[in-house]
Amino acid sequence: MLTKDENELLTRVGPGTSMGALFRCFWLPALLVSELPEPDGPPMRVRLLGEDLVAFRDTAGRVGLLAANCAHRGASLFFGRNEGHGLRCVYHGWKYDVEGRCVDMPNEPPETSFADKIHPTAYPCVERGGIIWAYLGIGSRPTPDFPALEWARVPAGHVYVHKRFQDCNYLQNLEGEVDSSHISFLHRRFSPDTTIAGQQLLNRARDGAPRFSVTPTDYGLLIAANRRWDDEHDYSRITQFLAPSYTMIPAEPGHSISFTAAIPADDYTTWGYTVSWRPDRPLEPEDVARIETWTGIYAEVDPTSFMPLANRANDYLIDRAKQSTESFTGIRGIREQDLAVQEGMGPIYQRNREHLGAADAGVVATRDYLLRTVRELETGIVPQAAVAAEAYAVRSAALVIERGAPPLEAARAVTAVNS
Amino acid sequence: MLTKDENELLTRVGPGTSMGALFRCFWLPALLVSELPEPDGPPMRVRLLGEDLVAFRDTAGRVGLLAANCAHRGASLFFGRNEGHGLRCVYHGWKYDVEGRCVDMPNEPPETSFADKIHPTAYPCVERGGIIWAYLGIGSRPTPDFPALEWARVPAGHVYVHKRFQDCNYLQNLEGEVDSSHISFLHRRFSPDTTIAGQQLLNRARDGAPRFSVTPTDYGLLIAANRRWDDEHDYSRITQFLAPSYTMIPAEPGHSISFTAAIPADDYTTWGYTVSWRPDRPLEPEDVARIETWTGIYAEVDPTSFMPLANRANDYLIDRAKQSTESFTGIRGIREQDLAVQEGMGPIYQRNREHLGAADAGVVATRDYLLRTVRELETGIVPQAAVAAEAYAVRSAALVIERGAPPLEAARAVTAVNS
Amino acid sequence: MLTKDENELLTRVGPGTSMGALFRCFWLPALLVSELPEPDGPPMRVRLLGEDLVAFRDTAGRVGLLAANCAHRGASLFFGRNEGHGLRCVYHGWKYDVEGRCVDMPNEPPETSFADKIHPTAYPCVERGGIIWAYLGIGSRPTPDFPALEWARVPAGHVYVHKRFQDCNYLQNLEGEVDSSHISFLHRRFSPDTTIAGQQLLNRARDGAPRFSVTPTDYGLLIAANRRWDDEHDYSRITQFLAPSYTMIPAEPGHSISFTAAIPADDYTTWGYTVSWRPDRPLEPEDVARIETWTGIYAEVDPTSFMPLANRANDYLIDRAKQSTESFTGIRGIREQDLAVQEGMGPIYQRNREHLGAADAGVVATRDYLLRTVRELETGIVPQAAVAAEAYAVRSAALVIERGAPPLEAARAVTAVNS
Repeated sequence: MLTKDENELLTRVGPGTSMGALFRCFWLPALLVSELPEPDGPPMRVRLLGEDLVAFRDTAGRVGLLAANCAHRGASLFFGRNEGHGLRCVYHGWKYDVEGRCVDMPNEPPETSFADKIHPTAYPCVERGGIIWAYLGIGSRPTPDFPALEWARVPAGHVYVHKRFQDCNYLQNLEGEVDSSHISFLHRRFSPDTTIAGQQLLNRARDGAPRFSVTPTDYGLLIAANRRWDDEHDYSRITQFLAPSYTMIPAEPGHSISFTAAIPADDYTTWGYTVSWRPDRPLEPEDVARIETWTGIYAEVDPTSFMPLANRANDYLIDRAKQSTESFTGIRGIREQDLAVQEGMGPIYQRNREHLGAADAGVVATRDYLLRTVRELETGIVPQAAVAAEAYAVRSAALVIERGAPPLEAARAVTAVNS
Repeated sequence: MLTKDENELLTRVGPGTSMGALFRCFWLPALLVSELPEPDGPPMRVRLLGEDLVAFRDTAGRVGLLAANCAHRGASLFFGRNEGHGLRCVYHGWKYDVEGRCVDMPNEPPETSFADKIHPTAYPCVERGGIIWAYLGIGSRPTPDFPALEWARVPAGHVYVHKRFQDCNYLQNLEGEVDSSHISFLHRRFSPDTTIAGQQLLNRARDGAPRFSVTPTDYGLLIAANRRWDDEHDYSRITQFLAPSYTMIPAEPGHSISFTAAIPADDYTTWGYTVSWRPDRPLEPEDVARIETWTGIYAEVDPTSFMPLANRANDYLIDRAKQSTESFTGIRGIREQDLAVQEGMGPIYQRNREHLGAADAGVVATRDYLLRTVRELETGIVPQAAVAAEAYAVRSAALVIERGAPPLEAARAVTAVNS
Repeated sequence: MLTKDENELLTRVGPGTSMGALFRCFWLPALLVSELPEPDGPPMRVRLLGEDLVAFRDTAGRVGLLAANCAHRGASLFFGRNEGHGLRCVYHGWKYDVEGRCVDMPNEPPETSFADKIHPTAYPCVERGGIIWAYLGIGSRPTPDFPALEWARVPAGHVYVHKRFQDCNYLQNLEGEVDSSHISFLHRRFSPDTTIAGQQLLNRARDGAPRFSVTPTDYGLLIAANRRWDDEHDYSRITQFLAPSYTMIPAEPGHSISFTAAIPADDYTTWGYTVSWRPDRPLEPEDVARIETWTGIYAEVDPTSFMPLANRANDYLIDRAKQSTESFTGIRGIREQDLAVQEGMGPIYQRNREHLGAADAGVVATRDYLLRTVRELETGIVPQAAVAAEAYAVRSAALVIERGAPPLEAARAVTAVNS
């Protein structure tokens, strides 16, 4: 459990908060590249860490991310004209470039123009792996190197990226990702069906009481959950937690690997990103088709709002008959099942009420990491992970090992990225 | 009127409040038996006194009422698996029986299991008269005897029970029930139509200025409203207020009798229960058909949400033409008329603004009873009504008496239950 | 910019606030006459300055405006019976006349009636120019004379009046009205189309950087914005700000003149009134038809809720293709364009974030006027405008003047009302 104060410390992310400052040390997914496809196209609203922003792609293809409201008199730049290497406010025509410079102030006579004095919030953006990333810590320290995530470096055809709106605090999402224990229950199906996305791996997690071991790393934590496989072997699932709120989901050698990010829109809502990639070859049409059955770690969403179709308002389309006969929940997909339990905790779960056991070791270790790191940052110590871009070149793993073998040792060859 | 402090005292009912403590001294209607019809069926959400709960009927048919969120990591038990004499959380498989014992903790290896240390909120339930009742005071004192309400003891076919969602604080509902004065106005019809449910009695309340007399009883209050009938007789309507928030609606000898309960879901919303019963015989199909014209004290509701079809959002389907020609309000049913005035006061009515007269004697007496009782409870005095289960064996009455006869004396034979 | 305290001072309007007190010195539009067309018709809800009220037209045709909830026990008078020279509460039959007297208390026997002690809130109303106006300052000082607005005096056929709901604080609306600078941008069309309402004038505002001059008057401010016309002439637009929140929109001689009012429903929402009138002749059908293309200063609204059809929820139906080719915004009408920028600032814009220039002279002067007047009122000084009813007999103007001529001098003949 966390005390009320600790819970507040880890869940509040707006400007001026400590956890918000920690997020602002890292490059963060801001929106999909596909949301901003072409130069001079429509601007998009972006809510991130409690800030209202507007993103646009300028004439030269560069992406800008500005405070949503014009520095002049506060009109929303969402309605702006994206033209001629900048975004122009429709109220009085002020125009900004992607770096936040005011490059035109046409409602003032030349002698009273003060465009050079206007410096609205503007965050640097880069595009990697189909995602537009932003660094919201601008001004406080040098912009960090971009993390060496493998999937952000492979050719475009090797990666599938996806975003969903999640109606709860980011930490409830993150804790689910580092909690390898729940997959034996929440995601269990009674009639294993290998046509279901991700089901193959889940079927191997028959042992519901895994033993955990956690190792600190430069990027965050490496979490191993060992389950009994047979008398001589264990099934070991290796999950990475990568600061500030990323994870990698265990995958068996020869299968695609998956990454998640739990990015706070604000204290109460989250953008959940899921990514799958093949280091060795492009994704085949059947790989994508399997993802888009929406039975696995990808939730089917409305293409405009990114709201999952199975959501809190419709009880995640739970089918009580199927809950008796087909699956543990009666809810279709793995991600949709996760949403039911994570959102069901309420907007911000009060962790002083909970009762943790040995099976929650991954969750506890992640919280401890965040608490330690956020408190260090309060004293001015920059998180190691924020300056360890190369450390992010890792893969998750799921493999059968000899009983008693150190799981991380065994996984080393599998989790290393050699590219 | 009430002062602001008195109003707060009587209207706030969550955990830790004084009025909440008073409600927690009594068995309270929690949901309809028909909402939880069969063993191992789907659990139901229940919001009661500001607490989020989940109800389920186990394999043996016993009803459990637990805190809605799992004691482990807060997943909603609404999505739980109701199976094998318990409700199992879908997140990690923890299972609870109807008494709140954690009877399985399958995500922990046997050596780290701590199931015997888990004691989630679990409230005792009983089923009486088609309603599942809960006692939310568990732990503070011995569970009280169940009140000897006649309708909860007669055979099932003698009773009609109904529930509606009401969009305001419970006290606005309760005050309407003990206010015999309003029926001469709010519920008046211009062309008396005896096919309309309840209309027969209302037509007798032609005298709009009744004289009230109030008598304290073990269960609460007995309120008589006397109206002029003819030169030698009065028409006397006897209403009971039964702690904490129940009433009986006057009925003439030989007609069915009605009971109401105003049960706080939270400070701002209420579950309104209405019950009608015949002590002497089963309800006939035509009795039920008359109720289900929804022109009387029963509001037509959505069968899933229990939201009245005529509600605040549609101005209770008021028909201004009919308000001129057919009825005082132009709103269809008696209950729907009550909702319009009770909900129209706002979520919590500020009683320091009001101006009471002699006709509000029943309302004033009920408030005085509650104020006195809640303040006594603050000093540790258990309400008499909470330990006077047998006193609840009463009936309401409406009868013509001789002018000047003591109404309660006259009503004694009628209001007593001899079963 | 305004400090946070100044912003609070100008934007909060409920009972007990300083700006609320300023509004309560003036006759304010409360609803359209067309909303309350006939004697003894249905009452209407009115929300004004944070107060919930109910309006009704009595048997004699007089308009009453009462506190929405009955003084007895708080039932909503919206459901009341409007009959026999008064509004009767449906709960217990209390009846009020338009002056707030309780003229019947039928639920009390004569000996306990206290009708003469009941004095609910009741505001005086007058009908002028198709609008029902109310004076909410009753009790604090003598009711002021009605302002000598020309359009409120001309024959009915000379005037078009319109009301809309606006989803932001009134000051954002008012500032837009006194900001002549934005019309060169927000309302610009690329292919001038003289069939579009109001377009003719806008086409003359090609010069985007007007020079402002502001003159204090008895009613408020006279604001001139001069734009370059040709080498020897300026195009001068004369806008009046009339306390507390009215404006006149520049019009060329021989065209209809327009008036606006930004009336707070509460701190977060506004009733926006727009009026156009011809001093010299009735409006022709084609005048009305042009208004009702909804391309000009009138937003198309739902006839019951007065909610604009193009609104925040649908991004004002912005058409990005048309934003490239037809108009600066891709939003249809002038008023709809205004709504996009004014509501886009949020419910209450924080003016400490803004950056003002010379082009904001009208906005700055209006804020200064309001700040000075509201602070004087705090010390007991009644605003001059509140006792200068005759000063409101003015017209706006838009005219071509010689370069260097004093614009107000030139406009004098045009802005004076001689009737």
